[in-house]
Amino acid sequence: MHSETMSKLRFKISMSLDGFVAGPGQSVENPLGIGGGRLHDWAFQLAEFRTLLGLEGGEVNESTPVVEESLANIGATVMGRNMFGGHPGPWNAGNPWDGWWGVNPPFHHPVFVLTHHARDPLELEGGTTFHFVTDGMEVALERARRAAGGKDVSLAGGAKAAQQYLAAGLVDEMEINLVPALLGSGERLFESVGDDLHGLELVRTVAAPKVTHLKFAKRLHQESP
Amino acid sequence: MHSETMSKLRFKISMSLDGFVAGPGQSVENPLGIGGGRLHDWAFQLAEFRTLLGLEGGEVNESTPVVEESLANIGATVMGRNMFGGHPGPWNAGNPWDGWWGVNPPFHHPVFVLTHHARDPLELEGGTTFHFVTDGMEVALERARRAAGGKDVSLAGGAKAAQQYLAAGLVDEMEINLVPALLGSGERLFESVGDDLHGLELVRTVAAPKVTHLKFAKRLHQESP
Repeated sequence: MHSETMSKLRFKISMSLDGFVAGPGQSVENPLGIGGGRLHDWAFQLAEFRTLLGLEGGEVNESTPVVEESLANIGATVMGRNMFGGHPGPWNAGNPWDGWWGVNPPFHHPVFVLTHHARDPLELEGGTTFHFVTDGMEVALERARRAAGGKDVSLAGGAKAAQQYLAAGLVDEMEINLVPALLGSGERLFESVGDDLHGLELVRTVAAPKVTHLKFAKRLHQESP
Repeated sequence: MHSETMSKLRFKISMSLDGFVAGPGQSVENPLGIGGGRLHDWAFQLAEFRTLLGLEGGEVNESTPVVEESLANIGATVMGRNMFGGHPGPWNAGNPWDGWWGVNPPFHHPVFVLTHHARDPLELEGGTTFHFVTDGMEVALERARRAAGGKDVSLAGGAKAAQQYLAAGLVDEMEINLVPALLGSGERLFESVGDDLHGLELVRTVAAPKVTHLKFAKRLHQESP
């Protein structure tokens, strides 16, 4: 289908100067790991993000249009199991945990969770339904594209899910929010991804307070001279 | 001495998006490792660099003033043994190798090489003399500061020497030339450096073809409000 072909897989993530997207010691209580919160200081100072979280205040700066762009035209999301909710293994059949996104998750569209453990869809408030996909990342992406209804699909992470899609060359756009700080250890984004960005080229750099936004995209062959 | 106190230690290096400053398989024949040359494509297209290498052509772009700044006001250099010339262990007493910088190295000032193996100074053409320092990185830096005559000291790398100075908080300015490509493996810049940039803050971002220049500097306490 034409509309499916045009639906892009878009990935955004905050990464430290030394390449980490989460600190060491990730847990259910501390999903970003030790020190991982520093990766998101730039976002929490934005009015745009504070409003999403129901907080007041915040500023408008060079990051604002980048964040607005990243949120626009998204019709579905794919994510890894850890990104939904961190405990490993089978779901607790009688009383499965509903993840750490709360009763009204910030997605407001279908979310496809990569997992080895089947589970019925989980419909929450505000239009977010989590679908649990056990037959692989390509199937999850296909289902997300169909559900997106002509809009794009967001790849929400975590690192392992992102690595799979990056290594397979399936990511069409990637926004690296590079944070000028070191974490020293933790989870690296570009681990086991190889040396090939599969045509993703740096197309825009935005210098903002506490972060540098690096946008990568595939050049369309039709646009080549 | 006041002039020594004001002499900054300045570090610049090209790093891939996944944090590598050299590819795998570094050797005397291939000092940048496999694929490591891709880190320097942005520089080799510059007229400024081509002139330094005795080549014609090249362009002037957003990188040019960054490179000019990095070359200005440098009175001495410190570097690791591998950066001088890659073979490990004691010098060959009868016929020690003179490194891979040629008979007229591009420094034109005193260069202090960190090594465990004593050797007489090596004076080459064009004002470059290599001094071999066996009593540690702090002594090498002191000697370089004195030799710089009020100018700054350049930290030329490689990664291991840079890591020592970074971890000790001795670097005053750092220019990361971030190359939007993956190497996948090789030598990481921020390995064993910890999670502390010791006051180095991102102070300037320059978007240029095939590279993003990220300048870090320590804010002077006198300038604080």
